Amino acid sequence: MVSRRAAALSAHAPAIAAAHQRVERDPYDPQRNPSGYLNLGTAENRLLWDLLAPKVAAAREIGPRDVRYVPLHGTPRLRAATARLLSTTWHTPVDPDHLVVVSGASAALDIVASILCDPGEAIIVPAPYYSAVEVLFTGRSGARLVPAPLSPTSGFALDASAIEQAIERTRADGTTVRAVAITSPCNPTGNVHTVAALREVLAVAERHDVDLIADEIYANSAFGDRPFVSVLDPLVRGESRARIHTIWGFAKDFGLSGLKAGVLHTERPDVLAAATALAYFAPVSSDTQALLAGLLDDQAWVCLLFKENRVRLAESYRNAADCLDNLGIPHVRPAAGFTIWADLSRSAGDSAAEHRLWQRILDEAKVNLVPGKAFGSPAAGWFRLCHTADPAHVQEALRRIGQLS
Amino acid sequence: MVSRRAAALSAHAPAIAAAHQRVERDPYDPQRNPSGYLNLGTAENRLLWDLLAPKVAAAREIGPRDVRYVPLHGTPRLRAATARLLSTTWHTPVDPDHLVVVSGASAALDIVASILCDPGEAIIVPAPYYSAVEVLFTGRSGARLVPAPLSPTSGFALDASAIEQAIERTRADGTTVRAVAITSPCNPTGNVHTVAALREVLAVAERHDVDLIADEIYANSAFGDRPFVSVLDPLVRGESRARIHTIWGFAKDFGLSGLKAGVLHTERPDVLAAATALAYFAPVSSDTQALLAGLLDDQAWVCLLFKENRVRLAESYRNAADCLDNLGIPHVRPAAGFTIWADLSRSAGDSAAEHRLWQRILDEAKVNLVPGKAFGSPAAGWFRLCHTADPAHVQEALRRIGQLS
Repeated sequence: MVSRRAAALSAHAPAIAAAHQRVERDPYDPQRNPSGYLNLGTAENRLLWDLLAPKVAAAREIGPRDVRYVPLHGTPRLRAATARLLSTTWHTPVDPDHLVVVSGASAALDIVASILCDPGEAIIVPAPYYSAVEVLFTGRSGARLVPAPLSPTSGFALDASAIEQAIERTRADGTTVRAVAITSPCNPTGNVHTVAALREVLAVAERHDVDLIADEIYANSAFGDRPFVSVLDPLVRGESRARIHTIWGFAKDFGLSGLKAGVLHTERPDVLAAATALAYFAPVSSDTQALLAGLLDDQAWVCLLFKENRVRLAESYRNAADCLDNLGIPHVRPAAGFTIWADLSRSAGDSAAEHRLWQRILDEAKVNLVPGKAFGSPAAGWFRLCHTADPAHVQEALRRIGQLS
Repeated sequence: MVSRRAAALSAHAPAIAAAHQRVERDPYDPQRNPSGYLNLGTAENRLLWDLLAPKVAAAREIGPRDVRYVPLHGTPRLRAATARLLSTTWHTPVDPDHLVVVSGASAALDIVASILCDPGEAIIVPAPYYSAVEVLFTGRSGARLVPAPLSPTSGFALDASAIEQAIERTRADGTTVRAVAITSPCNPTGNVHTVAALREVLAVAERHDVDLIADEIYANSAFGDRPFVSVLDPLVRGESRARIHTIWGFAKDFGLSGLKAGVLHTERPDVLAAATALAYFAPVSSDTQALLAGLLDDQAWVCLLFKENRVRLAESYRNAADCLDNLGIPHVRPAAGFTIWADLSRSAGDSAAEHRLWQRILDEAKVNLVPGKAFGSPAAGWFRLCHTADPAHVQEALRRIGQLS
């Protein structure tokens, strides 16, 4: 018998990770394994390796201090370099001492939920939401995730009134609400939120005296017409004294998902102190921190990487969108990120129909997609497709899906 | 206001880490900073850099897969290589699928406590114990740490009867006991436990139907006459069906403390499943995993490193012991590890006297030691000294301590 929390977590194994590993064991190859699995399930940026390789595989400037204990919430060097980058990304000065480095944005989400919520207390999350957030916000902290459903007719646009209604409904049930959490840009839809929508969300959080958690891990992966604007941007934040906790990491914008390096930014001293204490349980290798600081120090390279990333993301999206258009599959037009939020239902359908379709896509088409249910989708039949892989693979995957009758 | 758990953790900031950072900001240098701080507080092996540098600073064999998502409980390659090493260390075949890789042995201690204990349930730990274990076992899990005091007159030797008494006393108080946890070899004393003592501890755990947690992070750092024997060694375990969870990492035996890579070994399927789920919150960088697997693959180099490590540890200890002997400071003679457990009390003294002495050593001698209180020491006036640094620095630190009147 294990503890109640551990039993719940074991039962709630992250489905994305399991499917990812299943598919990776028998991967498609046009020559060697044409009947293998194609993975459009994992939001991973595979477009940047040629730019990363010369840096990542090179000899490293590592000294004895780089393999010794370092501050467990991040080396001063990495926090300074990250603060410099985020000052540009967020259009506001970032103090390195407001950053806590932990082993992935995932760990940062767990940590902020554990700090803000006692067990049973709620975090309001607009739905569809990043699927892993359910286990990350609740699994260790004991917090509850309460979805605020967004409307399919608006393309699931961020909507402060949906959030406000969810807060009021949850409080009416006698549950304490501690925070609202958004992803910005949005995973899975790829929506880049407007300044107006972000200001309204901030105002709702302030009015209801709850904190705002903003997962901005795709901040430098916006490729559409509307530029990314951070909740910390003076345009959004203005004079607001809202309590904002922002998360970023190297997984998406740098295409370094395996390195599991994320940061939490907060200006609330008590949250900062607690996050620093909790970082003790999820630190990042000093070796990897030295690598990342080295990457950030080469600012010209970072500029080039981000520029090229946007160009490649736009091309990659265009390739997938053309296939979807040819198949008559509607989708939300993304302005950021690696994924497309598509309506595969073909007819009204319900949650059971969505599950059957998902199973057929995995078993018959041998394509890994993540079904809307995993994102708390307010409408059935929606799936998330990740397009940031080999374009020919994406075409093959969508061809197979199109052939399912 | 933050959550109760977060508030408790913030209040309980790891003293060792704080002192470490204070001292590292103004370090002693015989020429440039002769009045700087000397750090004998951090159990870090600084004797191996010349052997590590050619491997760690070299160009890396990193491919695109090494920067992508990998199984969050460790890559198959690193788990296989670690299992091969531990099979030798533990004298028993180790299945890679019984290993969970997480961001440090610290994280592994938190994870095993969180799995075995619901809040309020107890883990029995012989004292003196590894100081950080208090926050690691209790900070996130809500478990309680109950010390089982060992006797100064036996040199704080591992004693199953002390553990059994602690279990019975704790149960009599109405608290559920879930596990016994030992460090083997012992931090802080450097004791290498006898086969007989380990068998008795195992028998006590079995008799009282509790699990055994063995932190064997110093397994390959035994330099004395008595060889290290794992609890998993058939000599110890025999036919016992005791539920054993063993922890190891790269911090000590490889001198790579900054890399924060630890493993949990367990054969209990429910604990393994839960640990795999919890590894999601504390994964190790794929980049660092590739480095470590590469180190382990060079088995001749590992052999040489461990052999040289033992020789250098013995020399390092001898240097420090000579100073202590000259000063007339008694200590437990260690057979493993990086530390010396010394009685600086000079007279009976109490906990308040120990604290005053610690403060004087830090403020006047400018030497960082960790006082016995942090280790739950059953006797006042004992301190832990780490000797695995520059021998001249160790001599200077002990000279300064000797000069305190």
